[in-house]
Formats: sequence, structure tokens, C-alpha cells
Amino acid sequence: MTAYPSALLTDQYELTMVSAALKDGTADRRCVFEVFARRLPSGRRYGVVAGPGRLAELIRDFRFAEAEVEFLRRAGIVDETTARWLADYRFTGDIDGYAEGELFFPGSPILTVSGTFAECVVLETLLLSVLNHDCAVAAAAARMVTAARGRPIIEMGSRRTHEAAAVAAARAAYLAGFASTSNLAAGAKYGIPTTGTSAHAFTLLHDDESAAFASQVAALGKNTTLLVDTYDIAQGIRNAIAVAGPDLRAVRIDSGDLSVLAGHSRELLDSLGATETKIIVSGDMDEYSIATLAAEPVDMYGAGTAVVAGSGAPTAGLVYKLVEVEGRPVVKRSENKATVGGRKTAVRRHKPTGTATEEIVVSQGVPDHRPNDRLLQRSYVVGGEILDPVPLAESREHLRQCLISIPWEGLKLSAGDPAIPVTIVPTT
Amino acid sequence: MTAYPSALLTDQYELTMVSAALKDGTADRRCVFEVFARRLPSGRRYGVVAGPGRLAELIRDFRFAEAEVEFLRRAGIVDETTARWLADYRFTGDIDGYAEGELFFPGSPILTVSGTFAECVVLETLLLSVLNHDCAVAAAAARMVTAARGRPIIEMGSRRTHEAAAVAAARAAYLAGFASTSNLAAGAKYGIPTTGTSAHAFTLLHDDESAAFASQVAALGKNTTLLVDTYDIAQGIRNAIAVAGPDLRAVRIDSGDLSVLAGHSRELLDSLGATETKIIVSGDMDEYSIATLAAEPVDMYGAGTAVVAGSGAPTAGLVYKLVEVEGRPVVKRSENKATVGGRKTAVRRHKPTGTATEEIVVSQGVPDHRPNDRLLQRSYVVGGEILDPVPLAESREHLRQCLISIPWEGLKLSAGDPAIPVTIVPTT
Repeated sequence: MTAYPSALLTDQYELTMVSAALKDGTADRRCVFEVFARRLPSGRRYGVVAGPGRLAELIRDFRFAEAEVEFLRRAGIVDETTARWLADYRFTGDIDGYAEGELFFPGSPILTVSGTFAECVVLETLLLSVLNHDCAVAAAAARMVTAARGRPIIEMGSRRTHEAAAVAAARAAYLAGFASTSNLAAGAKYGIPTTGTSAHAFTLLHDDESAAFASQVAALGKNTTLLVDTYDIAQGIRNAIAVAGPDLRAVRIDSGDLSVLAGHSRELLDSLGATETKIIVSGDMDEYSIATLAAEPVDMYGAGTAVVAGSGAPTAGLVYKLVEVEGRPVVKRSENKATVGGRKTAVRRHKPTGTATEEIVVSQGVPDHRPNDRLLQRSYVVGGEILDPVPLAESREHLRQCLISIPWEGLKLSAGDPAIPVTIVPTT
Repeated sequence: MTAYPSALLTDQYELTMVSAALKDGTADRRCVFEVFARRLPSGRRYGVVAGPGRLAELIRDFRFAEAEVEFLRRAGIVDETTARWLADYRFTGDIDGYAEGELFFPGSPILTVSGTFAECVVLETLLLSVLNHDCAVAAAAARMVTAARGRPIIEMGSRRTHEAAAVAAARAAYLAGFASTSNLAAGAKYGIPTTGTSAHAFTLLHDDESAAFASQVAALGKNTTLLVDTYDIAQGIRNAIAVAGPDLRAVRIDSGDLSVLAGHSRELLDSLGATETKIIVSGDMDEYSIATLAAEPVDMYGAGTAVVAGSGAPTAGLVYKLVEVEGRPVVKRSENKATVGGRKTAVRRHKPTGTATEEIVVSQGVPDHRPNDRLLQRSYVVGGEILDPVPLAESREHLRQCLISIPWEGLKLSAGDPAIPVTIVPTT
């Protein structure tokens, strides 16, 4: 098992802060922490909230086992008092936040964690790890889905990212509208449709390409995808149709100038009577290469490296900041890293047509209500009780609706400002 | 537990290929697969082998549990024959490869997996996930270590990457020469020194900065690091020394123009008599920002996002290709993705002074021996028996020696060619 006890998925400073706070009596001060992004990755027009659906299980399991506490004590990281506190640790506070699949912008308070200082601060590392990773993948994936204009995309990036990150990445890509994943653990754990047929190795294993195709069709039937670019693509297509017949489901091309090859392959398939055989293209696909193929007769895309690595933005830039202590807003003044204190309430404003116009974030208050406002926060944890996560399919549909709601410029791939402005109203 | 059964950390096509190969009788053909990079990330001069030390455990645990086989069967991914084969799966072949901490270049055969087609192909996803992630982090980290010119670097990127990837990233960064990590799971699992004191939240929690500093010193002693940039850095330093006295171990600055601030902070500390108090800087550190600070009075760096995300290259670009079937070299002919067939043997040539000059990779043969040659491959798995991994400290030292051995241009941060050429001698 690739198993990590989740409570040690934590930066040491969280525990040294708990130690010091337990000693000086501040550990129990009522605090509010907020997860937000100071800015979006360069040129991006929106962020996508992804990860809350994974957090329920991780927070529930966030307990320091005896051996872990012993490790921390023996390493001199925590003292006796803190060791005992950790052994009893259980989050008893509240977590509210944006729905999974919601869009976010600079300053959006996507997660709000309240409770004692100590119980909130020890969750920082886990919350940020999950959200920074999953949001980064989901945002990249959502742009690819837009670029694909309704054509399905298969997530096939597991081999390009950490083995456990691959599972979360498959989930985030599916949330963002991908059709399926190659990752079996994601299928087993999250019920995401899985897909996959063969690699070049399978063709090379056989005495010739036709033998490989015949074997695959014998095992998987004609409703399969034959990989036709191991040797010569045109010959590969001819072999595929000769072996499987014109009702072969699909061919896949994984190399070469796909914009030229797609058209040639379509013509060739049609000339062989395989007019319904789909063309799947893969190989270094990102939102830009997908957009480039919009006019070509491509039926489906396979995306790997770019989606799991966030297409140039592998982390979402989310931070976890203390914004309130005992009801009093707090802020740091560091250069370029200033924050607005106080617990925030957020709404998104819309035109009567449903187009989003603005996000209003009010510190220690509530935005005045207007028609077509939508409250953006919901409860995830109430008094330590972890609410059941929203089904992934529902979050996927939520994101689809959100992307329809933003102004059309917001969906452009080119660099630009956030799709809608966020107005943050500080505590008065 | 963030637990994934490692055998499902696998792309579906591996299992459909096994299905088809079991059916047509090719599953038992003796095969050799090779892990290599076609190219290094843009402008990089070397790659770093990282990950083999994590593989021993993962390969040992790579078994399909009953429930997993049942999932695969019910989902229609595998047939009965394949299900039985998976239930009995255990890798019985050989794995050889470059040592952890070894450098690699385009075409270096960093891992060679031999056995039956079926038993080798199912390992593809796991092997590539581990190596692509860990090598990417190690290469970025190694460049930062070079840029830091002997000053220690702390890895503190856990909050910016997937929660389990964070543990592997901490390991890869330590392998590459980082001094320590913030990640406690990496400390517990790999024995890496951990470090961490406090975040801005700790200062904000308290009634004022001096109270926070006093609390931290009371709990952790003067051998701690006070974070001085929550409000005003100069005042923060004065408060720190007023509270802790001139024998405070260190101050940390996490924002602002660090090249200016480091000098000012040093002067101020010295003027306060704190001549031995170290200055640690953090905040968006990468190899370039570290290099920029070379002339400034900085004692230690903290690196986060850039190291865990591979500093612009989040995946190492490694592929897993079938190169030999029943002793016969095989190659695909795809455009831009051509491979050289055959099992490879690799040596690195050196001048008598120890400077590396060239890597020679011979397909289905052995390079002629010259003085100062070093064989690059070692055994990881022999007939299914997994050999004990080399201790991480040893691999760390190996990399340090390797970096000394390459021509000096190879250590430049600027974009350039691989530090040494690789000559691949095909099967004659």
C-alpha cells in the first residue's frame, strides 16, 4: 500500500506553533482561517474549486496514531503536553467553503476554517496540499474541455505524475468535464469511467502489426481502439480495417502533425468504408493544441502530461491565512502579501440573463441582497461533524453551469484578466 | 489513511494488453522494456535519477487484491483468464538500472525491466509515475543546490503539491542536497531531518509581535527561527533581538525585495550585537532567485513551490518502451518518437582527472573498456527478488560526486545542451 498516515502529511511548523500556543495559553483562542488565492496563474481568467470532495475522508482520518506521536516526541518536535494534545486530536470546529466545481477568482474565500487556533492550524498543510493540487488540475482541464468544444477528452496522464497524485488528477479532470480516465484506481475509488486499449509495445510484441490488431480485436471485440502509428500510419489504418472490418470503433494516432494526419486519416477511413470509425488523437495535448485541431476531423482527444501538471500552472497558488482572532480581524502587512482580515461572506452577482457580473466578498458582514445573487459558501464541517460530500457528478454539472454563466471573454484561452471582478469590502 | 492499493495505480491499457496477450499466447514472450528520456526539459543540462529507492516497497506490494480483481472483472476490464492471472501476479523478472543519484541524459537507459511481456507491461504506469515525479523534483532541487553554493536549503513545498507527492518530493529534494524538509511524514518515513518553527498566523494570533516571539522562545528556546516580516521587518528584527537576546539562532524573511532586505537585516542584526544570528529567506525561491542572492548575506534558503513543481518541468519526460522480444531488438518508427531497439549497456567515460566526457550506450553488446570508464547499471530486482535499496544518504553523496564530475558548463543554470553527449551504438 502507498499509505501515509494523513496527520503526518503536515509541516513541522504547524506543530511547533501548537506547542508554543499550548504553553502560553493562546491555543484555545477562537480563530478563523481562510483559503484564497492572491492571484490566478499568469493570464488565467478563472480558477476551479476542486478537492473538497476528497477532504471529507482525509479530515476524518486526520488523527495522530500512537507511533506517530512517539516519533514526534522522540525527534524532539513536540513536548509532552503537545504529544498528549495530538494523541487526542480531533477537529471540532466548522469548515465552510465554495462548492466543488465552483469558479474562483483572486480574493475569493474558497474555504473558511473556524475553531481554536490549535485545531485549525494543524490542518493547514493537508488542506492546502489537496486544494492546490486539485484546483490546478481542474483549471487546466476545464480550459481543455472548452477548447474541445464538446468532443470528449480522455485523461491519460498517470504516467507523468506521482502515483497517488495521478488518482486525484483523474478525479479533478473528470470534475472539469473530461469523459474518462486511464487510471484504474480512480475508476475503483471514484466511479469515474475508465478506458484504455493498447500501447505501441503491444504492436511491437507481435510478429507484425496485423497480428497485433487481430489479437486485440479477438480479445476486446471491434468496439475497441487500434493504435495505428507504430510504423506507418496509412498502412496502419489499412491493416486495422482489413483486420477489424469497417465497423471498427476507433483508431488512435499518438505522434506526428496531427492536424494534417487527422484529415488524411479521415479520408482514408472513409475510402475504406469505415465512415463511422472514430479518430482519437493523443501526444502532448494541451488546451492550445486541442484548439488548433478544432476544424479537423478529430472525434476524441487523449490528454496526459499537460492536464496532470496543470498546463504550466502545477499549483493553484492558494494560501491559508489567519483572518480573525476572538472576533477581531487580523492582517499581516508584508509587502505584496497583504491580506484583508475578518471572516468573509461571498456572493456572485448576475444579470437577469444569468451572466455573472461580479463577486462581492464582505468581511464580517453580509452583502446586501440583490435579485440574481448567489451565495457561494456552504457547510462542509459543522461542529466537527463532517457532512457527506456532494456526488462528483453533481459537482461536474455545477462547474458546467458556472462556465456557461461567466462572460464569454472569460472562456478565451488567451491571457487576460479574471472573468469577473471581485470586490472585497473590508470590515468597517 | 491516504491509501491506494498500488496495483490499481495502473493505466487500463496495461491490463487490456495482458488480456489480449494471454489469449493469443504472446503474454509469455521474453521481453525487455527500457525507461529513458528522449530529451531533457527545455534548456536543462542533466537529469537526476530519483525514485528507485521508493520502488522496492512499491513493487513488493504490487499485488492485485481479491476486491480489486473483482472490480476489474465486474467493470468488464478483464476476462476470467486475466482475472486469475492478476490474482496470482508477482513480478518474477529482473530490473537493472542507474543508481539513485546518478545523472542521466537523453537516451540513457535508466531502468531496464526484463521478463515476460505480461509481467513487465503491468509495471509501466507505476514505474513511470514514480520516476517521472521524483526525477523532476530532484533535477530542479539539484540546480538550486548548485545555485546556493553551499548554503543550506530547506524544502518547504508540501502545501503546494499533492499530499502524498509532497512526501516523495521532500525525499527527492534531500537526495539532491537539500538540508532538511518541513514535511513530517518524510521525516518519519525516510529519516530526513525536519525543520519548521512558525508562520505569520502565530504572530497574528498574539496581542503583538513581541508576545508571539516571547512565546516561541519560551517554548522552543533561543535556538529557533523568528519570522520577522508580519508587520515591519526592521521593527520585527528589533523585537526579535529584544525578546530573545543577541544569541537568537535565526530570523526568517518571507516577502519583499530579499536582495535589499538581506543586507539591511544583516546590518541591523550586527548593530544589535546579534552577529551570529542567521538570516533565512523564503518566498518564491527557485534556482534563479537563489543565484541572485549569492552575494547577499543570506545564510539559508527556504524553497517551496518551485522545487516540488520541478521549477518549470514538473515531469521528467521519461517513457517505458519495449526494446527487445525473444532476443530480437524492436523499434517503433513513429515520427519524432523513434527508439533504438535492444537491451542496452551503458558506461560513462571520464578523463584521467575524473571529468566525465561521454556516455556510451551499446545495444545488445558491451562498450569496449577504457580506463576511467564507469559502468552505470546495477541490479534492483533479480529473478523477482527485490534487493534492498541503497541508503538515501549514500545516493545523496553519489549525486554530489556526479555533479562534481561533469564539465563545469554542465552546472550553469542557463539553457544549454546536455552536459555530456550520449552515443548510442545500435545493434549491428
